[in-house]
Amino acid sequence: MARPRNPITSQMGWSTKDRIVVRGHDLPSELLGHVGFGDMAYLEVMGRLPDEHESVVFNSLLVTLVEHGMTPSAIAARLTYLGAPESLQSAVAAGILGVGSVFVGTTEGAANFLSVAITPDTNSADVPALAKSIVTEARESKKPIAGIGHPVHKPVDPRVPRLFEIAEAHGFRGLYVALLEAVAEEASAQYDRVLPINATGAIGALLCELGFDTRVARGLGTMARAVGLVGHLAEEMDNPMARELWFRVEDEVVEASGGAS
Amino acid sequence: MARPRNPITSQMGWSTKDRIVVRGHDLPSELLGHVGFGDMAYLEVMGRLPDEHESVVFNSLLVTLVEHGMTPSAIAARLTYLGAPESLQSAVAAGILGVGSVFVGTTEGAANFLSVAITPDTNSADVPALAKSIVTEARESKKPIAGIGHPVHKPVDPRVPRLFEIAEAHGFRGLYVALLEAVAEEASAQYDRVLPINATGAIGALLCELGFDTRVARGLGTMARAVGLVGHLAEEMDNPMARELWFRVEDEVVEASGGAS
Amino acid sequence: MARPRNPITSQMGWSTKDRIVVRGHDLPSELLGHVGFGDMAYLEVMGRLPDEHESVVFNSLLVTLVEHGMTPSAIAARLTYLGAPESLQSAVAAGILGVGSVFVGTTEGAANFLSVAITPDTNSADVPALAKSIVTEARESKKPIAGIGHPVHKPVDPRVPRLFEIAEAHGFRGLYVALLEAVAEEASAQYDRVLPINATGAIGALLCELGFDTRVARGLGTMARAVGLVGHLAEEMDNPMARELWFRVEDEVVEASGGAS
Amino acid sequence: MARPRNPITSQMGWSTKDRIVVRGHDLPSELLGHVGFGDMAYLEVMGRLPDEHESVVFNSLLVTLVEHGMTPSAIAARLTYLGAPESLQSAVAAGILGVGSVFVGTTEGAANFLSVAITPDTNSADVPALAKSIVTEARESKKPIAGIGHPVHKPVDPRVPRLFEIAEAHGFRGLYVALLEAVAEEASAQYDRVLPINATGAIGALLCELGFDTRVARGLGTMARAVGLVGHLAEEMDNPMARELWFRVEDEVVEASGGAS
Repeated sequence: MARPRNPITSQMGWSTKDRIVVRGHDLPSELLGHVGFGDMAYLEVMGRLPDEHESVVFNSLLVTLVEHGMTPSAIAARLTYLGAPESLQSAVAAGILGVGSVFVGTTEGAANFLSVAITPDTNSADVPALAKSIVTEARESKKPIAGIGHPVHKPVDPRVPRLFEIAEAHGFRGLYVALLEAVAEEASAQYDRVLPINATGAIGALLCELGFDTRVARGLGTMARAVGLVGHLAEEMDNPMARELWFRVEDEVVEASGGAS
Repeated sequence: MARPRNPITSQMGWSTKDRIVVRGHDLPSELLGHVGFGDMAYLEVMGRLPDEHESVVFNSLLVTLVEHGMTPSAIAARLTYLGAPESLQSAVAAGILGVGSVFVGTTEGAANFLSVAITPDTNSADVPALAKSIVTEARESKKPIAGIGHPVHKPVDPRVPRLFEIAEAHGFRGLYVALLEAVAEEASAQYDRVLPINATGAIGALLCELGFDTRVARGLGTMARAVGLVGHLAEEMDNPMARELWFRVEDEVVEASGGAS
Repeated sequence: MARPRNPITSQMGWSTKDRIVVRGHDLPSELLGHVGFGDMAYLEVMGRLPDEHESVVFNSLLVTLVEHGMTPSAIAARLTYLGAPESLQSAVAAGILGVGSVFVGTTEGAANFLSVAITPDTNSADVPALAKSIVTEARESKKPIAGIGHPVHKPVDPRVPRLFEIAEAHGFRGLYVALLEAVAEEASAQYDRVLPINATGAIGALLCELGFDTRVARGLGTMARAVGLVGHLAEEMDNPMARELWFRVEDEVVEASGGAS
Repeated sequence: MARPRNPITSQMGWSTKDRIVVRGHDLPSELLGHVGFGDMAYLEVMGRLPDEHESVVFNSLLVTLVEHGMTPSAIAARLTYLGAPESLQSAVAAGILGVGSVFVGTTEGAANFLSVAITPDTNSADVPALAKSIVTEARESKKPIAGIGHPVHKPVDPRVPRLFEIAEAHGFRGLYVALLEAVAEEASAQYDRVLPINATGAIGALLCELGFDTRVARGLGTMARAVGLVGHLAEEMDNPMARELWFRVEDEVVEASGGAS
């Protein structure tokens, strides 16, 4: 027995014989040549184009997320390309699948706790008490605080002051940034060691400042990493490392298991 | 017995305690706030930043590829999100996997035949003869010509004249574009029906004009679609269609097989 | 400054010029022709071959998970195949990505709560009290109980009594099954409606009976679904539905947005 | 304007309140406890259960494909798990995406050329001439012959004689196997070096003997690798190598680029 039917609708875009409309904008005349790739991403996710200030801040967030060097995800993409060079998209997809809870999840985590803590009634005087309660609670439950601490970039993650500087210049250094800074300070005090804001934390705060739904935070990381992965694969075509890496691992494992005697 | 070892190198970037360098540029001071997401993509793939003209043309190509409405790939991403909402990246990856030979492959195909036909010695007087030979050969081998023809956008794909206009304004309307135009005209004559240049064909030609390796053509489609897929998933969160679609298919199949009597 | 190095080891297998060993077994002489695909899966995950009884129960679990009709995951795989027919593996991968928290997660969830509740000291007399506390806690925290309830198969999921019958015949109907049954009964009483054990719940309990690490529960679902997805794609080659489905969605969306007038 | 509608049908299975039918078989009563995982795979792809002989040969093919040690695909899966341990299915999918043209494609390639060469009228006397023409053509066009040659397993891939022995015992050593053997012999003669049949070649031939559509050859590799990948991920949980591998690559690249001075 069939279930009752509901309509299927979408506001993403539509086309006819002679028109192509994306999110309400005529693609050829209003978008092509007028908006950059980053603003197009903003349009896709937010449903409207950014203003000049939103554009600079949003593009900065995406640019920060594009390239993180030889990450597990980039290596996985290169190894996948070795087996399926005819399907570049598969290698990109394999790399994207490593954008999970461990490396990019902290953007989401920071955006989540900040967006829960700040309400329409919050003002700057409330920030220190909010920070204190967030850190104390994390300490008591022995949970890490998303967006705080970095294994390499100490005492300052060099991306963070620059991102906040850009945000300030464009009117987006607000309560979310202030709270994250207060949390980092409070955490450094309570744990008695330097716990700087890291880049994913800063990005989480700025996504909140820009008004993004925290559920799409991971999506922004995903699209930026897709760009970075294509870069890695373009390099892999001319300067491959996947085969060498495979041989090293295989040889080491075979030798350790005594199989190659 | 272990195989000989080779070094592993990469020019993508590196970081230390206080520096983060991407493709030779200091990320915080030289890239953040200075380059947009599209230019960052160019840097990743080409290894250098675009100039002002390259930037406009390249961003236009990417923007064209972002959003094509309710494609099979976008629907697949939404269905994947229904089963694994905790892994937004998985839904994006699933959508990317549909960017294969059928829908985006024509960009690659067009870039391939154009880049083979045009050599350093080619000049504009050679274009008609090249076009004639390309179309004649395709006709005789009964193979479609990549980048020509569109099921909906007839007699003109509205993106194509706009893309070529942008390319011309920035000095990138060269021999590759001329050859593709000649091929479309020749094909329309030989097949005696309107066979317009389609958007993926135009993009293939412009990638050649910009000097891209044709092997990364599919990569540019992939990164642009990643952006579009995040847009679709952001809409799916608030205005879902996946469950309805699933129920419709399941009910239709069960009824047709007599199972639901 | 490089970090200290650790060895990389694996017990999965190794090969030399004339030998191929998998999990300690000579592949040609000890495995080929002697063990079935299901027992090979057991060997891969558990590190040893199953005995005759473990084999029957384990194969039954896998067989149960293979085919669930036109699921969102199967539809996503078919849509992906439409765009990339040259990469069958991509379509399978896309389908697998939908095996997330919503549909297969309940296997993991049931295995988790059962494995936490039953300790080495638990005996059958403890089961009713354990069930009561599990259901009461779930009710108070308003959380669903994994493995209980089914939208279609009521009052009995026909797979469940059969799976338990097989387990009993082979000596694997133990405390985990007893606890799951007690939980279903207790839940039906407390919520005052029929809440049968569902197939994923039964499988979760039997994985515990067989001694599997609950972290691989999702892996077993994944391998079984890979088999089912290849089946769907084999059907899609001869009796395709993806293009029709795509056209329906596209047309409905375009019409609803007024674009096709 | 909407396109005309076509029905959507499927023979995979259906379910109602109290019945679950897969490929025409009642799942609880006819399949569970009666058929193994390998036979279920056969049912899914072929639409009917195998007989006793088909079952042994088919299971042997799948078992051969499950575990190939530390392949690029297995390493990619482990690296993906490092970033997204909450999504085991993503790591499996990433590994599957490397099952492309390079490593498993030869199964498909061998099945393709064998199934084209053998027609209903072919008999064993035709085999030498067919082999000669296949090898000569490959040599002249400088293309490799799928299924022939192996970098490690020389002069004999130990899986091949065992697979053919099993096939012979069950009545499936026919013309496809004979042709592949003749091709290997002819190639060794023409190229004047040992070119043994490799395992993927043997599997390609046996898939033809069993009557499989060559288009699903890659699907069988995919399902078998899914099983092997879950095995690797189960090992990675207890004996991880991904982080160590990542650190090694990252350190080597940073040192080579002078970034870590």
